[in-house]
Amino acid sequence: MLSKNQLKFVSSLKQKKFREEHNLFIAEGTKIVTELLQSKIKVKQVFATAVFLSKVKIDKSIEWAEIKENELDRLSAQVTANEVLAVCEIPEYILNNNELNDKLTLVLDEIKDPGNLGTIIRIADWFGIETIICSKGTVDAFNSKVVQATMGSISRIKLHYVDLIEFLEGFKDQPANLKFPVFGALLEGSSIYSQQLSSNGFIVIGNESKGISTNILPYITDKISIPSFSISGGHEVESLNAAIATSIICSEFRRR
Amino acid sequence: MLSKNQLKFVSSLKQKKFREEHNLFIAEGTKIVTELLQSKIKVKQVFATAVFLSKVKIDKSIEWAEIKENELDRLSAQVTANEVLAVCEIPEYILNNNELNDKLTLVLDEIKDPGNLGTIIRIADWFGIETIICSKGTVDAFNSKVVQATMGSISRIKLHYVDLIEFLEGFKDQPANLKFPVFGALLEGSSIYSQQLSSNGFIVIGNESKGISTNILPYITDKISIPSFSISGGHEVESLNAAIATSIICSEFRRR
Repeated sequence: MLSKNQLKFVSSLKQKKFREEHNLFIAEGTKIVTELLQSKIKVKQVFATAVFLSKVKIDKSIEWAEIKENELDRLSAQVTANEVLAVCEIPEYILNNNELNDKLTLVLDEIKDPGNLGTIIRIADWFGIETIICSKGTVDAFNSKVVQATMGSISRIKLHYVDLIEFLEGFKDQPANLKFPVFGALLEGSSIYSQQLSSNGFIVIGNESKGISTNILPYITDKISIPSFSISGGHEVESLNAAIATSIICSEFRRR
Repeated sequence: MLSKNQLKFVSSLKQKKFREEHNLFIAEGTKIVTELLQSKIKVKQVFATAVFLSKVKIDKSIEWAEIKENELDRLSAQVTANEVLAVCEIPEYILNNNELNDKLTLVLDEIKDPGNLGTIIRIADWFGIETIICSKGTVDAFNSKVVQATMGSISRIKLHYVDLIEFLEGFKDQPANLKFPVFGALLEGSSIYSQQLSSNGFIVIGNESKGISTNILPYITDKISIPSFSISGGHEVESLNAAIATSIICSEFRRR
């Protein structure tokens, strides 16, 4: 049985303000919580049904409580609660620009949809992209909808929220021998199928409806796009969804 | 002002049973309805706010009514209604197996998530895939969540719901000179980056959690997969989401 205070505290973490204040976030569901328990993320509290507790062993250092399904429903940020909810510490990563030099890194410019961000984190994990740089206006990665959509990948990807302009300025005056391209997904870019890609650099993905911000455009060194093969003639096909575009671009970079 | 009967009738179309009975579906939002009005889909009724009606001219043959935002909210199947709702005829396409011989066609085996199906329809549109064959257990494409997620592409893609086994049987005994591959996305498949692909055939996408059904597997002639570049070591990355996998596969087929 949960106390009123516990219920109130966990529920407060659905809001970014309280997540930041306590440096904690919520994860739900058997698969994700099981993965988090095995990851580097520090799990602080677990609230689970008897079914979950019969399957998964929880380390002694973690505070846990068995709760009934209806209690879990009240705690949950999901439409349907699922066996377990964990309160975890938001990991803090140190951003070292030099470490990014020989890697491929995703840079998100104002991604607003939690499902898109979660899917992008999962894509990064699949394609071995370790770090994602997010503009300050990008949706919070520890929002529960994002956490759920990552399907556990949130525990493996290093996320940094930065002032994008300040951040990109730091990569502007690289020595000439160090080629560091900043790719930007733009409708007018060259086809990713024929353009020269690289194994390091940034891939900038813009906002769902507005694309890459005007003040970020000057930092793009290589404009790329995904050609459409639509046969619909006069009608214009809506551009691809941000997460779909990210997946095709990442696939194309890694294939080479 | 809407009559009680009108409200009841439009609301009934949120259920598959009534969509099938009347052969009608609902589409919402300025962008989608504007596209539908210009498409081959027959729009029967339009319920719109004054804002929409001031922007878009509606053909005389279409029954329409100006309604207030709060009325639109009551009609809407969306969380937030958006200027306009249209009642449209479900298009009927004739399935001619011979027409598929020289084309690339998506075959969906029990895709259950409306967002995934909508996104897949949008991807097909982008990559010039004209036809999607759905197993009978695939979520209804005229479900409003699917329609919304297609962003208008629903008007351009021919969808057929069939008994998959019966359908695939019809392609089994092709003359030897007509190479007709059935690609299946499977974890154990060969890398799509190195495998021989073709400009015709089927690409079978399986259910979100179960993959391709056991009784469909014998029809797969070419098993394909998207290699993971994950560096997470021991931890297993969740397989890619069905729509993401579809986008990467379609991109790879079209690139060649």
